[in-house]
Amino acid sequence: MATRLTADLPNVELLDSYGRLLDLVRTREAVTRPELSSRTGLGRTAITQRTTVLLDAGLLEEGELNASTGGRQARSLRFAKDAGRILCAELGATGFTAGITDLTGSVLASRHVECAIAQGPELVLDEVEKILDELLATEGCAPEDVWGVGVGVPGPVEFATGRPSEPPIMPGWNNFGVRERLGARFQAPVWVDNEVNLLCLGELRTPGASVGGELLYIKIGTGIGAGISSAGQLHRGAQGCAGDIGHAAVSDDSAVICRCGKTGCLEALAGGAALARDAEALAGGGHSEPLARILRENGSLTSIDVAAAAQAGDHQAVQLLTQAGKRIGAMLATLVNFYNPQVILLGGRVSDAGDLFLASIRETIYRRSLPLSTRELRIDRARLGDEGGLIGAAYMVLDELFAVHYFGDWLPAGSPAGMPHLTG
Amino acid sequence: MATRLTADLPNVELLDSYGRLLDLVRTREAVTRPELSSRTGLGRTAITQRTTVLLDAGLLEEGELNASTGGRQARSLRFAKDAGRILCAELGATGFTAGITDLTGSVLASRHVECAIAQGPELVLDEVEKILDELLATEGCAPEDVWGVGVGVPGPVEFATGRPSEPPIMPGWNNFGVRERLGARFQAPVWVDNEVNLLCLGELRTPGASVGGELLYIKIGTGIGAGISSAGQLHRGAQGCAGDIGHAAVSDDSAVICRCGKTGCLEALAGGAALARDAEALAGGGHSEPLARILRENGSLTSIDVAAAAQAGDHQAVQLLTQAGKRIGAMLATLVNFYNPQVILLGGRVSDAGDLFLASIRETIYRRSLPLSTRELRIDRARLGDEGGLIGAAYMVLDELFAVHYFGDWLPAGSPAGMPHLTG
Repeated sequence: MATRLTADLPNVELLDSYGRLLDLVRTREAVTRPELSSRTGLGRTAITQRTTVLLDAGLLEEGELNASTGGRQARSLRFAKDAGRILCAELGATGFTAGITDLTGSVLASRHVECAIAQGPELVLDEVEKILDELLATEGCAPEDVWGVGVGVPGPVEFATGRPSEPPIMPGWNNFGVRERLGARFQAPVWVDNEVNLLCLGELRTPGASVGGELLYIKIGTGIGAGISSAGQLHRGAQGCAGDIGHAAVSDDSAVICRCGKTGCLEALAGGAALARDAEALAGGGHSEPLARILRENGSLTSIDVAAAAQAGDHQAVQLLTQAGKRIGAMLATLVNFYNPQVILLGGRVSDAGDLFLASIRETIYRRSLPLSTRELRIDRARLGDEGGLIGAAYMVLDELFAVHYFGDWLPAGSPAGMPHLTG
Repeated sequence: MATRLTADLPNVELLDSYGRLLDLVRTREAVTRPELSSRTGLGRTAITQRTTVLLDAGLLEEGELNASTGGRQARSLRFAKDAGRILCAELGATGFTAGITDLTGSVLASRHVECAIAQGPELVLDEVEKILDELLATEGCAPEDVWGVGVGVPGPVEFATGRPSEPPIMPGWNNFGVRERLGARFQAPVWVDNEVNLLCLGELRTPGASVGGELLYIKIGTGIGAGISSAGQLHRGAQGCAGDIGHAAVSDDSAVICRCGKTGCLEALAGGAALARDAEALAGGGHSEPLARILRENGSLTSIDVAAAAQAGDHQAVQLLTQAGKRIGAMLATLVNFYNPQVILLGGRVSDAGDLFLASIRETIYRRSLPLSTRELRIDRARLGDEGGLIGAAYMVLDELFAVHYFGDWLPAGSPAGMPHLTG
């Protein structure tokens, strides 16, 4: 892995150009020295000198000879994805997933552990640290291999400080110094964000099918939340709580009281918990024999059971799903008019409820949004599966580590354990 | 004004550092050479050399000696706000305002002209060009003094090309090359955007009371629209039509058909035209003597009349305003949950309808939004008056002209008439 270099006070302009070179190779926008030269405007001598520093630092590797369009063949450069490791953890209400990725965000190892977040930060982070230690040992990583730590939590986070900010389902976590604790433990910089933001970021940064820069990621699980990007960057909002659409008022019906204490909230009418509640009422009231059968077998119903019953042709289950889809679609139509996204991705367990559910969401969006807003709008299921949150956490760390200004921001205060310092 | 320099192919890195120096002085973040050095990391020699080029180019001027905190006094630099001029035009449905600003966005001269936008681009732009010519003559400006042109229009715009994109109230303007036409006429770069975006940008960039980077600007006029900023940049959306909240569904009531052809739209229930329509119905039905009296005098009613009647104590007018305020507030509560803005500014004619209207909007937002989202939320009237759109158009041009990457982007293709080319 990369050797550690030491630097004097950074020359920000110089470091900027290192960061930019590294980022161009990392994202594969420019991989040969001539390409780097034409993309940055730096001369051949400067490019040779700076790529040599990055090669010596172990951040770049020489690749194969590129097919050339005339003249001398140019050797391509490769980002050294194994120069360091990123530790990630995605914390949910009832359990967490911890993992290790390389510097491109590929998950090398991960483990899911049942663990109630309501136990509070000390106990939960004890457990997270234990699992991360085990993963580090399994992967044969030394402490200085860890370049950064990314954590997702099911609640709002003040991103600048990494502290949860009045998270409703995380008692004891308000304002807790997650960054300080994990940073001291793993001697690496730590970033913390809301899990839906990380799911959004994962989809945004995963190479391949482009989702554009204006992406809405809608997670439909027990609750409903959104991750928002503008021009390829996450929009987190003034208090870091942007995307909380679950408690938007979508009905004047005051019969159902939401867990937030208000009535008419979207998630109280169309979230996973609402589907399960309504399905149990139908089953108990004798309106759906398929649902009643599953209820007898399992003792409770979930949104997945509703989807299964609907797919088996149960009329009442179909009704439940299409109603929920319409409610969600109506809210999304408003957001499409307001935000004009390029792509909407639907994630979370309930969004696996089948084509019927997706169709009723789509139909409502197209019916209620402005034609111009939906002309090129794509509405799809999220592409990343169970590891989406982990991958997003890794990308968050990579974004911050390799931001053009990163070297400048970090060097004065000391850089992460294994991260090379550069001298120009 | 600034002399014209010529340059060879630009060295992007070099130009970046010019742009950055200029921007630091322009925004007054760093005004002395030592401050510029510590902000950019550039050494003393480089700063001296580059500021000399910018001084010679007429973009910077020497200012007074700064009070020093020890050591030699440092002379401050001033951005040469009179080195060039910006032409602006804000096009509305029934008239336009055209103006000239300096390079800080201060309006030096402006004129409002009645002119229906529905006459189509050829006729309207003829008129705009005529007025701009007159203003240039009045101000004693030569053609090469014009560094850029900014135009606001009442409809969606594809910002990258400056072309209106299916604007509903601008027949004949769809896809019209506003940039090409005005660019050829004034030999300067042209940028075009939706007027509400420019109102938002004007508030965002005006020095003084900070509105933070996460601003929602809500224009309540005949229709209702929003300008959105994320991290200090306008969020325009995938098709440039973000902010169209007037046609979001806020009611199941299908009695009122909106001008868009749908029912339940916010602006059909709470916009200026809706207030006038409902007030005329009340007056005609004998429910409000004060409104009936104004209707007899003027032949029609406006939202301003409703506000006046409410302020005079007319119960029905009060009802109309508070109902509209609640409708708008409910929509904004959803947007507060979704977007978590720092500040909401209310502009447009209807937002002058008095404290009662503002209070009912505020009350609904606070009641329906999440406590964390509203903890530090400010909801105020817009600060810029009638010239807000012009000022926003100037800031749009300045943002683009002085973007860090501007010199690099523009120089190869030729720079605006009077804009100096820099050689490093």
